[in-house]
Amino acid sequence: MASSLLSHQMRYTVQRSLGLFVPRYRCVSKTATKSSLDFEYNGPSMKTEVPGPRSRQLMKQLNVIQNTDAIHFFCNYEDSRGNYLVDVDGNIMLDIYTQIASIPLGYNHPALFKVMQNPQNLSTFINRPALGILPPEHLPEEIERSLLSIAPRNLRKVQTMACGSCSNENAYKSIFIWYRNKERGNSKPSKKELDTCMINQEPGCPVYSILSFMGGFHGRTFGCLATTHSKSIHKLDIPSLDWPIAPFPKLKYPLEEYTRENAQEEARCLEEVEDLIVKYRKKGKNVAGIVIEPIQSEGGDNHASADFFKKLREIARKHGAAFQVDEVQTGGGSTGKFWAHEHWGMDDAADVVSFSKKMLTGGYFHKDELTPDGPYRIFNTWMGDPSKNLLLSEVLNIIKTEKLLDEVQKSGKALLNGLYDLQLRFPHIVSAARGVGTFCAIDAKNEQMRNTLIEKARSKGVVLGGCGERSIRFRPALVFKEHHAHLFLNIFNDILAELK
Amino acid sequence: MASSLLSHQMRYTVQRSLGLFVPRYRCVSKTATKSSLDFEYNGPSMKTEVPGPRSRQLMKQLNVIQNTDAIHFFCNYEDSRGNYLVDVDGNIMLDIYTQIASIPLGYNHPALFKVMQNPQNLSTFINRPALGILPPEHLPEEIERSLLSIAPRNLRKVQTMACGSCSNENAYKSIFIWYRNKERGNSKPSKKELDTCMINQEPGCPVYSILSFMGGFHGRTFGCLATTHSKSIHKLDIPSLDWPIAPFPKLKYPLEEYTRENAQEEARCLEEVEDLIVKYRKKGKNVAGIVIEPIQSEGGDNHASADFFKKLREIARKHGAAFQVDEVQTGGGSTGKFWAHEHWGMDDAADVVSFSKKMLTGGYFHKDELTPDGPYRIFNTWMGDPSKNLLLSEVLNIIKTEKLLDEVQKSGKALLNGLYDLQLRFPHIVSAARGVGTFCAIDAKNEQMRNTLIEKARSKGVVLGGCGERSIRFRPALVFKEHHAHLFLNIFNDILAELK
Repeated sequence: MASSLLSHQMRYTVQRSLGLFVPRYRCVSKTATKSSLDFEYNGPSMKTEVPGPRSRQLMKQLNVIQNTDAIHFFCNYEDSRGNYLVDVDGNIMLDIYTQIASIPLGYNHPALFKVMQNPQNLSTFINRPALGILPPEHLPEEIERSLLSIAPRNLRKVQTMACGSCSNENAYKSIFIWYRNKERGNSKPSKKELDTCMINQEPGCPVYSILSFMGGFHGRTFGCLATTHSKSIHKLDIPSLDWPIAPFPKLKYPLEEYTRENAQEEARCLEEVEDLIVKYRKKGKNVAGIVIEPIQSEGGDNHASADFFKKLREIARKHGAAFQVDEVQTGGGSTGKFWAHEHWGMDDAADVVSFSKKMLTGGYFHKDELTPDGPYRIFNTWMGDPSKNLLLSEVLNIIKTEKLLDEVQKSGKALLNGLYDLQLRFPHIVSAARGVGTFCAIDAKNEQMRNTLIEKARSKGVVLGGCGERSIRFRPALVFKEHHAHLFLNIFNDILAELK
Repeated sequence: MASSLLSHQMRYTVQRSLGLFVPRYRCVSKTATKSSLDFEYNGPSMKTEVPGPRSRQLMKQLNVIQNTDAIHFFCNYEDSRGNYLVDVDGNIMLDIYTQIASIPLGYNHPALFKVMQNPQNLSTFINRPALGILPPEHLPEEIERSLLSIAPRNLRKVQTMACGSCSNENAYKSIFIWYRNKERGNSKPSKKELDTCMINQEPGCPVYSILSFMGGFHGRTFGCLATTHSKSIHKLDIPSLDWPIAPFPKLKYPLEEYTRENAQEEARCLEEVEDLIVKYRKKGKNVAGIVIEPIQSEGGDNHASADFFKKLREIARKHGAAFQVDEVQTGGGSTGKFWAHEHWGMDDAADVVSFSKKMLTGGYFHKDELTPDGPYRIFNTWMGDPSKNLLLSEVLNIIKTEKLLDEVQKSGKALLNGLYDLQLRFPHIVSAARGVGTFCAIDAKNEQMRNTLIEKARSKGVVLGGCGERSIRFRPALVFKEHHAHLFLNIFNDILAELK
């Protein structure tokens, strides 16, 4: 996956070994090149601490209604522009977290405003249909224009859903239905199956399982949560299912410096996957599917090689399990390709690919054979939201016309090269810079330092997010340009220098 | 619940016993009084069979992308108005199903158009925030103005979610967290709990349960589905959890003619609930919560008395279980009160009330003590959608200014009285008319007849939905007036007369 970054990494390794390294970043922030988006701000501008007085006042007000412990600050979305998020105290911040990686084109993109201002579109926003029974006339055409235009290779079926969790829940259901149909020889279910399923019992509700990975995150509803293993606070106190959990490779970065060790680690994990499939089959808990992220995101931006995923996909095929790639966070272009799994270079990478976040609508692509075998098997009231499809169409249009994937590759290189520089200069604070496109991360020496770095960045006008135990993840919008990367790197350099 | 209908039912019972019944409906359809909504159509107008040629063409097109077996026909939402749904073949139909009970004010309500045309609102539609960490400035005020203005008594906390299933999933999680905190004496979780939860094991993932009812429907994601027991096709092939399932009272209608038998049936069910709670506690699968619909909707519009719900609520309290009322389908005004459980006349009816559908946003109200005890315990990327809150605010405004709950009571009376008439005249075809407000249903003699009636109604320009084994459910929008009820009853009368 990280092969395209090899040359840069090598350059820095060489620089380091030859003692050629020269700091590239000024220690003065806030004077970045003007954005190519005319309507964007010139740079961060901080008026108060964050959260400021107005944010704190609103927190008190909201705290009467719900738990507000996770709230960072309150936002003025009307005044936010492009890569800049404005808060209610008038602070303007460069946003490299983008609502947990869910804003594709930055804030208030003019093209999306136009969609909203077109009178022909308004009906779609105020008449939300039950898509599964009474779809709008333009649905097939809309899906063809939008989702099918970026369908992963070999997956020509797609089902929309309202969010990431619902997408994975229903993807798992599709997998179980497909697997069970195979097992019963595609014959009709027995009366006993129809009766027992009503009371949650076998054989109607089989005790099949989905195999997932330690460190993985697939959502927080009950089915998803049984496959999520990133933080205990997500899972504590919630009943779960006895489904197999395999180790995800713990690789050393930079990947190309540790090829042999990393290959061994990946082989160990793959072996465990096969062992678990056999073990769970013996327990009568057949593995119907395997679910994995191309880059474990919530779990700490953990990468694995294309070779690992190819072999894993083969193991799934060998054991008759469906292979689901969860691209809820990685999908939508931020790795420089539309789907992160494209970096594996496979013709038949997955049976199911789920998405949400930057796609604006949730959903999943799947193989023909995973199409439900009858009506109402995969079903709910809304089955997605055509108003989100409409916005997605325009987002995809902008991605193509503005060549944003190329831009992501450029700004991603600038970002990652800068992170490599910084970890060479501040090795006692940050390490393990890694990434594909702008989907980058760096580790702090510990959790406390990570949180300090995020806080200091915010006070200097940069919004960052954490992941895993001690990682900072970079999740800019697709309109994040090279000059935004340099602007951030200058600020981050200042912060690291101050801590030195 | 059905007490407000007593006088009418008695009138018809008396009429029947005195032989005074006179048919009230003409056998000529399509000449209803003009709608009070000026922009509405005058009545149904059918040009083709349904699905017509354009719908069938679109089905073929969509079938390449996904399973279309459940699709009734394709719609022209732009041309739909008020209670009238227009299809792609130009047929205009009176809609008494409203996208599975999810359209509050009919189609293209002018007030909602105004919301969309207000430039100040557009930003909310194109900048979807991660509400749990970066809420917009107006969120507290918006929630106060909208959701809190219709909060069930005693429930002043509310959490929005994207759909009904996510609402119930997260409500269950809140219940488990609350219950587990009680059990551990509100002390901090042990290291063993934090470790075991990561691998889906006890004690971190306790084997607690939610008690649900046969015939209940609470959604179709894994947690919800373990409490859903309405149709086998919803559950077949999907792994589940061993959670207790109690019988829901099978009452005889009209309720006031069978008070003694119905009370016995309810007592039997309540006894079984207590037995199950004790049995599951002995199994080590403590019942942390009970979930129930005020009227079982998908399961066949099954009613129970206020007395039943009062006693059930007491049982939950006695055994330390949370009591959740699922108002996803019943909430939002169609019973003539905003929440169906208000008909029980209780001060402290529930610990949790979940909603979605006509509320446009999903979510759940809850008691203070069910507020999560820390950040990120109840969390996902979007945590709802402020653009739906915005539309909901206007819907609630219209409900109040146009006194739509009063209108629902009036049109509901007209509808139910008409159904009473029809079942007296066609007792070999329909029976068990029942309902509160416009939330009404009637049974056909069998499933085939029910489906025939729905099909024939559609061919005459009325969209109806089924539920349970052989029921027709009526789910008009809140703008359904008396004259719409009469218009429908005329058409239904024609259909029944033709079948006679």
